[in-house]
Amino acid sequence: MVIELISVGTEILLGNITNTNARYLAEECAVLGLSNYYQITVGDNEERLSEAIRTALGRSDIVLLTGGLGPTEDDITRETVAKVLGRGMYEVPEIHQQIQEYFDRMGAKSPSSNNWRQAMVIEGAQVVENHNGTAPGMIVEVDETKRIILMPGPPEELQMMFKESIAPYLAGMNQQVIYSKTVKICGMGESRVAQAISDLIEAQTNPTIGTYAKGGEVHLRITASGTDVKEAKRSIKPIVKEIKNRFGDKVYTTRESETLEQHVVGLLKRRGMTVTTAESCTGGLLAGTLVNVPGASEVFNEGYITYSNDAKQKILGVKKKTLKNDGAVSEACAAEMAKGAAKAAGSRAAVAVTGIAGPDGGTEEKPVGLVYIACCIDGNVKVESYHMNGDRQKIREITVKRALDMLRRCIRQTEED
Amino acid sequence: MVIELISVGTEILLGNITNTNARYLAEECAVLGLSNYYQITVGDNEERLSEAIRTALGRSDIVLLTGGLGPTEDDITRETVAKVLGRGMYEVPEIHQQIQEYFDRMGAKSPSSNNWRQAMVIEGAQVVENHNGTAPGMIVEVDETKRIILMPGPPEELQMMFKESIAPYLAGMNQQVIYSKTVKICGMGESRVAQAISDLIEAQTNPTIGTYAKGGEVHLRITASGTDVKEAKRSIKPIVKEIKNRFGDKVYTTRESETLEQHVVGLLKRRGMTVTTAESCTGGLLAGTLVNVPGASEVFNEGYITYSNDAKQKILGVKKKTLKNDGAVSEACAAEMAKGAAKAAGSRAAVAVTGIAGPDGGTEEKPVGLVYIACCIDGNVKVESYHMNGDRQKIREITVKRALDMLRRCIRQTEED
Repeated sequence: MVIELISVGTEILLGNITNTNARYLAEECAVLGLSNYYQITVGDNEERLSEAIRTALGRSDIVLLTGGLGPTEDDITRETVAKVLGRGMYEVPEIHQQIQEYFDRMGAKSPSSNNWRQAMVIEGAQVVENHNGTAPGMIVEVDETKRIILMPGPPEELQMMFKESIAPYLAGMNQQVIYSKTVKICGMGESRVAQAISDLIEAQTNPTIGTYAKGGEVHLRITASGTDVKEAKRSIKPIVKEIKNRFGDKVYTTRESETLEQHVVGLLKRRGMTVTTAESCTGGLLAGTLVNVPGASEVFNEGYITYSNDAKQKILGVKKKTLKNDGAVSEACAAEMAKGAAKAAGSRAAVAVTGIAGPDGGTEEKPVGLVYIACCIDGNVKVESYHMNGDRQKIREITVKRALDMLRRCIRQTEED
Repeated sequence: MVIELISVGTEILLGNITNTNARYLAEECAVLGLSNYYQITVGDNEERLSEAIRTALGRSDIVLLTGGLGPTEDDITRETVAKVLGRGMYEVPEIHQQIQEYFDRMGAKSPSSNNWRQAMVIEGAQVVENHNGTAPGMIVEVDETKRIILMPGPPEELQMMFKESIAPYLAGMNQQVIYSKTVKICGMGESRVAQAISDLIEAQTNPTIGTYAKGGEVHLRITASGTDVKEAKRSIKPIVKEIKNRFGDKVYTTRESETLEQHVVGLLKRRGMTVTTAESCTGGLLAGTLVNVPGASEVFNEGYITYSNDAKQKILGVKKKTLKNDGAVSEACAAEMAKGAAKAAGSRAAVAVTGIAGPDGGTEEKPVGLVYIACCIDGNVKVESYHMNGDRQKIREITVKRALDMLRRCIRQTEED
C-alpha cells in the first residue's frame, strides 16, 4: 500500500519552520510497511491544495494531510478536501461541546466564530479525537480502496493522534509487517562502504540495504518485509552477519539507538576505566560529546583544553624541545599530550587531539586538515594521523568522531569483552 | 518568479532524516523575493523523479533539486535531469582532477568507478564548485525563462554552495531588489520578543519583520523590497533603529553573519583580554564554541573541564567546604570556579558553568535545568542562575549561549567601546 504525505502550511514554504511532521510520519509509516513515494508541501491555497490532493489520489492509496485544521481563516484543509470529493459538511454537536470545554479548561476567552469551524466535519468521515487540542482529525473513505486522512499540524497533537488512532487504523488496513536492523560503521567513507557490499546491494530484493552517511559514520539499514515479524527477522539475520564479517572491527554497533559516544562510555564502564581528554584544535568538543552521554560522570572526571603551546607544557608536560623540533601539530606532541593528560587526571585512558582546523595556519608541509590523534591506555600510546576535508567546523566534527573511534578500538584491544 | 524545491532521497521518504535543506532553502529564497508554492520529496527512482521534474517545470520558473549527486548507484539525479531534458552528458577533466586531489588529500584509497560519475556534467550546464565535497552543482538553462539547478544533499555542502554561487545567481535573475537586515537578540524568548514589537508586526507591509528562534537566540529579520538597494535600505533604517531602542543591551549585533561567539571573541580582541573556561555540565562545549571562531587563539589559551568534585578542587581551587555546604551546583561554587580558572590560566576573564543537565541528578531543591554561570573579569565575579527547559542536549546548548551572552555583557561593562 502506498501512502502520500501532504503537509499544508505557508509557514513551511517560507522556511519559518522545519517540517518535522513529515519525518515523523515517514518513519512511522515505514515501520507499518507502507510505501511512501512522495512528500508534498503546499501552502494554505485552495487551488494548489486541490491540485495536490487530486494528484495524490490518482497515484497513492492513502493521502495523509497534515495542517490547515486550525481556527484561523487561512486554515482551509477541511473545506478543500470536502470540495475535491464533492461532499458536504455538517456540525458535530459533541465536538462543539468539546471545544467549549477545552476553552473553559484553559481559562481562555470564549471561542470565536472561527473556532466553531473546527466542529465541522466532512460527510461520511470518521472523526478522530484530538487529546492535545481542539481540531479533530478525520478518516475519509473515498472509495473501496482509497482513503484521505486529515491530521492537525502541531507536532504534539499530531503525534499523539497518530499513535492512538491513525497507526492502529493503518496497521489494520495493511497486511504486511516490516522489520529493519541498522549496522553502524565508523572510519570508512560512504562510497567505500557501498563498494564493499555492492554485490549484496545489486542482488537485493527482500531484504533491502540502504546506506546513509551520518557525520563521519556510515549506517547500513537492512529492511525486510514479511507476513510476520519472525519471518522478517529471519530473512535479515544472514545479511547482517555477512555485513559484520566484511567490515569487522569497523562496525561499532547494531543497536538502532546507540551512538558512538554512548558505545564508548559503555565500553569504559564495562572495563571500569576512566578517561580524560587533551584537546587543541577541537577545543572541548571531544569532551563535550562524551559528557553528553547521561551517566558519563562514572568514566570522566576532568579534561583539558590546551590551545596554546604554554598550556600544553604547563598542564600536560609536553616538552619544550618537542614543540620546537616537531611543532604542536605532530605525532610526538600528540603522544606527549595523551600521556601527560592521563597522568594529570590519574586516569587509565586518555585521548589527545592536535591539528590544524583552519582557515589559517596551514603550510605546505602541514596543511589545513592535518590532525594527529593519540590514545594512551595504561601507559601505552598510539598515534594516528588524518587528513580531513571541509571547513573549520567540519574538520573539528569529524576529528571528534575519529578520536572516539580510535579510543573505542584501543579500549577493545586491551582485553576481550 | 516562482521556485519549486525537489528533495531527492529515499532516506527522507523512509523518515531516516529530517529534511532541513528544504527549510534552509525556503528561507533563503523568501529573502531573495522568490515565491515558493511547492516542496516535493521523491526517492532515488527514475520514473517518479522524472515525473516530478516535468510537473515542476510546467508550473514553476526555477526547479531546485537537492540530493542524489553522491557516488553510489542510487544517486541518479544528474542522469535523470539529462534524460528529461533530452541532453547528453560529458566528463569535465578539471572535476576528474579535483576528485583525484580530494582523495589524495584525504589519504584515502583511489576513487572507485562510481566516484568518477561525479565528474560527469549535463550538456550546456554551468558547473558550480563544491568546496565541501566532491559532487559539483549545476545550473541548467532549460529555455529563455526556465532553469533547473542541481545541488548536493549534505547540508554543509549545500549551504556553502548556495551562499557562494546559487544565491547570487538567483538574485541576478530576479529584477526586484530585496534588502534585509538582521537584529540578533540574546536572553529573551521568542514570544516575549514578538510581544514587545507586536505593534510593528501588525502595521507591517514593506518592510516586513520576521522573527526566528535560533537555539537560545531570537533573530529579527527586517526585509524590504524596492527598485534599488538604496531605496530598500532607506525604508529599513527607521525600523532597525526602533527595534534597537526597544531591546537595548539585549541586541548583540546587527551583522548578518556575526555569531554570538564571534562577537565575544571580537570584543575580547578589542579589549586585549584573554579568557578561560571552567565547565562542569557543558563538559567542553562552551570552550568548543569559542574556539570555533577562527583566530580564537589570540584570546583563548586554555580551558578546564572539571566534571568531578575532585577536579574542581584540584584544578580550580574550589573549597572543600563550599562543595560540602553549598554543593557543586551553587552560586558559591560557580564563583570559586570562575576565580580559580582565571588564576590557573593567568587570564583577565573567565567564565564558569555548573548545573544539572539531567536526565538524572535533579532534586526538588535543585531540579534538572538549574544552571549557575559565573563571570570573573579582573577579579570581579558575578553569578547568574537559570532554570533551563528541555532534554540534556538542549539544556547544555542553551547554557553555552547564556554563558557567552553573560560574558559579553560583563566585558562591555568594564569600559566603553
